[in-house]
Amino acid sequence: MLFSELIAALREGNAGLQDHQVANDPNIQEGASLEIADWNQISFVEHGSNFAKELEKSKAGAVLLPINEDLRNQAIQKGIAWATLKDPRLAFAQTLGLLNPIFKPQKGIHPTAVIEEGVKIETGVFIGPHVSIGSGCHIKEGAIIHPGVVIYPNVVIGYQSELHANCVIHPNSKIGKKCVVHSNAVIGSEGFGFVPTKDGWYKMPQTGLVILEDNVEVGCSSTIDRPAVGETRIGEGTKIDNLVQIGHGVKTGKGCAMAAQVGIAGGARLGNGVILAGQVGVGNRVNVGDNVIASSKCGIHADIKSGEIISGFPAMPNRQWLRCSANFKKLPEISKSIKDLNRETFR
Amino acid sequence: MLFSELIAALREGNAGLQDHQVANDPNIQEGASLEIADWNQISFVEHGSNFAKELEKSKAGAVLLPINEDLRNQAIQKGIAWATLKDPRLAFAQTLGLLNPIFKPQKGIHPTAVIEEGVKIETGVFIGPHVSIGSGCHIKEGAIIHPGVVIYPNVVIGYQSELHANCVIHPNSKIGKKCVVHSNAVIGSEGFGFVPTKDGWYKMPQTGLVILEDNVEVGCSSTIDRPAVGETRIGEGTKIDNLVQIGHGVKTGKGCAMAAQVGIAGGARLGNGVILAGQVGVGNRVNVGDNVIASSKCGIHADIKSGEIISGFPAMPNRQWLRCSANFKKLPEISKSIKDLNRETFR
Amino acid sequence: MLFSELIAALREGNAGLQDHQVANDPNIQEGASLEIADWNQISFVEHGSNFAKELEKSKAGAVLLPINEDLRNQAIQKGIAWATLKDPRLAFAQTLGLLNPIFKPQKGIHPTAVIEEGVKIETGVFIGPHVSIGSGCHIKEGAIIHPGVVIYPNVVIGYQSELHANCVIHPNSKIGKKCVVHSNAVIGSEGFGFVPTKDGWYKMPQTGLVILEDNVEVGCSSTIDRPAVGETRIGEGTKIDNLVQIGHGVKTGKGCAMAAQVGIAGGARLGNGVILAGQVGVGNRVNVGDNVIASSKCGIHADIKSGEIISGFPAMPNRQWLRCSANFKKLPEISKSIKDLNRETFR
Repeated sequence: MLFSELIAALREGNAGLQDHQVANDPNIQEGASLEIADWNQISFVEHGSNFAKELEKSKAGAVLLPINEDLRNQAIQKGIAWATLKDPRLAFAQTLGLLNPIFKPQKGIHPTAVIEEGVKIETGVFIGPHVSIGSGCHIKEGAIIHPGVVIYPNVVIGYQSELHANCVIHPNSKIGKKCVVHSNAVIGSEGFGFVPTKDGWYKMPQTGLVILEDNVEVGCSSTIDRPAVGETRIGEGTKIDNLVQIGHGVKTGKGCAMAAQVGIAGGARLGNGVILAGQVGVGNRVNVGDNVIASSKCGIHADIKSGEIISGFPAMPNRQWLRCSANFKKLPEISKSIKDLNRETFR
Repeated sequence: MLFSELIAALREGNAGLQDHQVANDPNIQEGASLEIADWNQISFVEHGSNFAKELEKSKAGAVLLPINEDLRNQAIQKGIAWATLKDPRLAFAQTLGLLNPIFKPQKGIHPTAVIEEGVKIETGVFIGPHVSIGSGCHIKEGAIIHPGVVIYPNVVIGYQSELHANCVIHPNSKIGKKCVVHSNAVIGSEGFGFVPTKDGWYKMPQTGLVILEDNVEVGCSSTIDRPAVGETRIGEGTKIDNLVQIGHGVKTGKGCAMAAQVGIAGGARLGNGVILAGQVGVGNRVNVGDNVIASSKCGIHADIKSGEIISGFPAMPNRQWLRCSANFKKLPEISKSIKDLNRETFR
Repeated sequence: MLFSELIAALREGNAGLQDHQVANDPNIQEGASLEIADWNQISFVEHGSNFAKELEKSKAGAVLLPINEDLRNQAIQKGIAWATLKDPRLAFAQTLGLLNPIFKPQKGIHPTAVIEEGVKIETGVFIGPHVSIGSGCHIKEGAIIHPGVVIYPNVVIGYQSELHANCVIHPNSKIGKKCVVHSNAVIGSEGFGFVPTKDGWYKMPQTGLVILEDNVEVGCSSTIDRPAVGETRIGEGTKIDNLVQIGHGVKTGKGCAMAAQVGIAGGARLGNGVILAGQVGVGNRVNVGDNVIASSKCGIHADIKSGEIISGFPAMPNRQWLRCSANFKKLPEISKSIKDLNRETFR
């Protein structure tokens, strides 16, 4: 696509195009990072990053820049195509989308798919090879079900939702519109509920269900359990990375993001816009307020107020944790100082 | 089911029914938590919980109570159906079981299942669509094998065991009676054993096997590896949550419970009744005694005596860890105090 | 196999056979650990291990020993077959390989496999039941594809590589020679990239690909994501255990090893020969130098120089961490000492 065509498209978008220069109007083939981009590739630079040097050395044919005089001048000097935007990362995402139209399998139901009686399938659906769909399911318009997916009975798959290969959806789950469930994820499996008795663990029947609201994504091999009673609910627009565990009865607000290997124990509640970095753990029945950000490996055992930025184990405000863990490294000296002081003081 | 019918059933059970009042004998449809239960739903209250207020506000038609005078009086005052029991949680589990008979697929072998030669299949078995079973396997009476399951050669699946969709069982594994292997779990895969050589990692052949004793459950996407020689063994009645890793040659006692994302390294031994909370790690060849409880994210690098309650990383007695981590938060003040003391003492 | 035959084989190998005694030339059936081995089994003993006592009690018919006079004499005294070697563990691995020839399924394509148009399949390939292969793929000579595997379009599977049951390979991935992808692993799925906007998370298209170089292994249920642009690359001979997450754009050197539940965030770089123990986390864009060893649960937030041995969270040199965490356990006393000193000093 010509850079001038891209500019026309970005003008329609919401990334805040401010200024641009078509230069030799290069024919852009794909996106690339600054350091390896070639003349037929496009890159982007973000606010506050140390990309000035990289831009200088880059062979990229076009760049998307933040609104920054220095970077703009550098691009002018190089004589390459450039645009300045309020949100160059968003513009780059939209550019990649234009350069790489999403592959969608052709509509239709593969003859090897096994669909039990009483399944309602709307128009424009793709159901791949070796898929199994249990009785009473409802597959809505435009859904894409890749090979090997297993759907237990009485599940609803929403409009234009996509289920990647070999994922499994358990009974009664409700998947909203435009959700993506990645490969090998498991939705709606039995919660881990057992009652201790003198004869061993007695299974608490898990009679509830899992609801994914619209625009939710669930990463590869992530697992979301259904509860004994009631529901596990993932709020609209929440994005979940790979290998994440969501326990029975958890409820999340809208627009949360959870990085890989996060674990959320049964009954916990997350507000809207919560961001959990990799390997974070949230304890049973803990309440995490709106817009909380927890850094990686954080262990959240007690309720957290809205807006907090937390770190460490047990979780504490990030600033405190930075000070505490800096002092942790000094513990041997601290210990020695105390010995010396004791000798001096109590001699 | 009428509340009076439920009482008759609980009287036969082992939850220790003490007293009850049928009131208007409501027709109970399902279980629900106190705060959302309606007139045709049943809830339960546990010892020591702050449920008195919730009970007051609840619209539940019936409640299962601990043996507690106040709660009992409150229920009487509300005029609802109630029962007092030694173990109301167990009674609730049994009630859910009565209200929600477990769905079992119809017996039979789906025509799309691929079963190699020399497989012995007993009566009353369900084998779903797109299942693959390797030669020499033995599927015992009443086993349920959901769609997409792959069983490698020479595996034994015990009486009434259930394998959920898309799980994989590797060669020579032995699954006991009434086990449940949840979706996408992998049993009996090769242990992670490599010998360092100057030409890189040389694979140690993993010629052992995995044994699940009776009544074991393995969660979704959990992995249990076989060892180079000998066996990996999960003791009777042990329950394993989702995304748990059990390394090659691990042995666990009976009745253990492991929450999600626990990792147990090769050759470790757990006694009976060990409970590991979420994201706990157990090191290579470590011995964990009977009835040890490890709290979440605990890192167990050295042997632990029976009966210990441990926390932290590296693991220490829980009480000590609580004190130490409380003081960790004071490290900046501690550091400052020492500076002041040094100034004062050594001036 | 007779012990004398084994010796002939080990003489050809690279485990450094030094001396041996055939004794009664036992017919070795299999490998076993010293404490349970019987007369027709073979065990091994390593340098520096406390195996002298175990060897004394062992009923093993044959042992592979390090070059150690005491152990050798003990074996002579027991009258069993023995060999001394520079690397007895490597010799044991080779012995297990000889005693247990690897099971390989018969070549051929199962009739239930669904192979789209334009797939190139070389000779000597096994493709099992219910496999799906998308258009444009290239399956090279000797590849083994177990039941239930799903391969998206335009993937290359290298010479003699093995894909275990129900794993999933996403578009454009390139799997090198003699790689092993274990059950339920996912290669080449979309990286977790979203741009925050006022209307929620906007998906960054993930147009890159994943490359596994030759001799790479990826454990069960591990996930390796493709990036927005460019590649995620796993270096030759790198071994990855179960439930490991490799984020988009990560690059590892050759011969790395990652234990179970390791997580590596997007854009991180590992040098050659890096070893990460269980549950280690590596942060976004962090650079880890050659031959770094990180102990379990380590959290790596900043670049690490080649050759370092690191521990803890945040990561620090292992020796420092041992001292600091020993002092962490003394924090309550330290705190009390400071109170006493303050009282004494500032009274």
